[in-house]
Amino acid sequence: MPRVVDHEERRRAIAEAIFRVIGRDGMDAVSLRDVASEADVSMGAVQHYFNTKDEMLLFALEHMRQRVLDRFTARIARLRNPTSKEYLRTVLRILLPSDQQSREEAMVNISFFASSVNHEQFRELLREGYANLLAVTEAQLAAAQQSGQLRPGVDVKNEAAALFYATQGLVGPILLGVVSARKAVSILDHQLDRLFRY
Amino acid sequence: MPRVVDHEERRRAIAEAIFRVIGRDGMDAVSLRDVASEADVSMGAVQHYFNTKDEMLLFALEHMRQRVLDRFTARIARLRNPTSKEYLRTVLRILLPSDQQSREEAMVNISFFASSVNHEQFRELLREGYANLLAVTEAQLAAAQQSGQLRPGVDVKNEAAALFYATQGLVGPILLGVVSARKAVSILDHQLDRLFRY
Repeated sequence: MPRVVDHEERRRAIAEAIFRVIGRDGMDAVSLRDVASEADVSMGAVQHYFNTKDEMLLFALEHMRQRVLDRFTARIARLRNPTSKEYLRTVLRILLPSDQQSREEAMVNISFFASSVNHEQFRELLREGYANLLAVTEAQLAAAQQSGQLRPGVDVKNEAAALFYATQGLVGPILLGVVSARKAVSILDHQLDRLFRY
Repeated sequence: MPRVVDHEERRRAIAEAIFRVIGRDGMDAVSLRDVASEADVSMGAVQHYFNTKDEMLLFALEHMRQRVLDRFTARIARLRNPTSKEYLRTVLRILLPSDQQSREEAMVNISFFASSVNHEQFRELLREGYANLLAVTEAQLAAAQQSGQLRPGVDVKNEAAALFYATQGLVGPILLGVVSARKAVSILDHQLDRLFRY
């Protein structure tokens, strides 16, 4: 019986292989050959799905975002009726590298950033990502304020920005081991405790 | 009369050329040839000073730090008897890309980060940089607390970390144009105003 190839599945497998190569060797190292070898498929198979290296990398970036979003949805589902504070805490924590998978994702993101000097398409995707996450942070804080969960006098826009950018700023130092993921969480929790009454 | 070559001057000129190449084309693009052409010297001259590409990049990174430090010292000198708040504000602002030069520096830093996956020496330098800057932020906040300049109840370690990492987290979004340098400064000022009585 001929083997039936699940194309979506195979594209995903290739995207995952791309992460591993970038996470291990950096973006410079990503070649069709390395990715094919890591995904255990032929170079022809990789070329069948992606015409250029950029196309392959963009697919990997999109796939990574979906992976992060799926993990976020799963964590929120486990919380059941999360408070705004719990929800926000989950959003921010999901962005911090805390295990092999999220370290890989963070490294891929930084590699995209470094390569974005010459790629308007990369820049546009990165911009969208930042803007969406900042909007989610702000919306959660605004909702919490409306329902009386914040301490008096919180400036939602400014505090949402400070919280979100502090989270972003922790990613690199965690990857380098300057700060532990646990410590990073406690830095953010301190801010959440300051902003929220409960 | 034979031309006397000022070696320190020439190494600096080469380092500056490296920044421009990285800032314009990304780290992947940095070759001895490009750097020689950008610095308007021969490839032999570049090779005279640097045996390997890594050596050249490390020198560029160190040189960049010196450049940032010099700019910081000059700004502090202009302030005359700065308060702790002014001093801290100057430290944090110096880290934000606000003009061509500081944008270049930030891009060089991110490129180093992306390449650090495979370079323990790069990682070590980056770690040192983060640790030093965080220590300066903390020391300033601690001194301000000792002399009664902070509002009551400020947790110096946690707040110094949140402030410093928020600054770090603003660098990428400023480079991408998600947030303006001016807006970034106002986000940090809001935090400083919250922490300081004056």
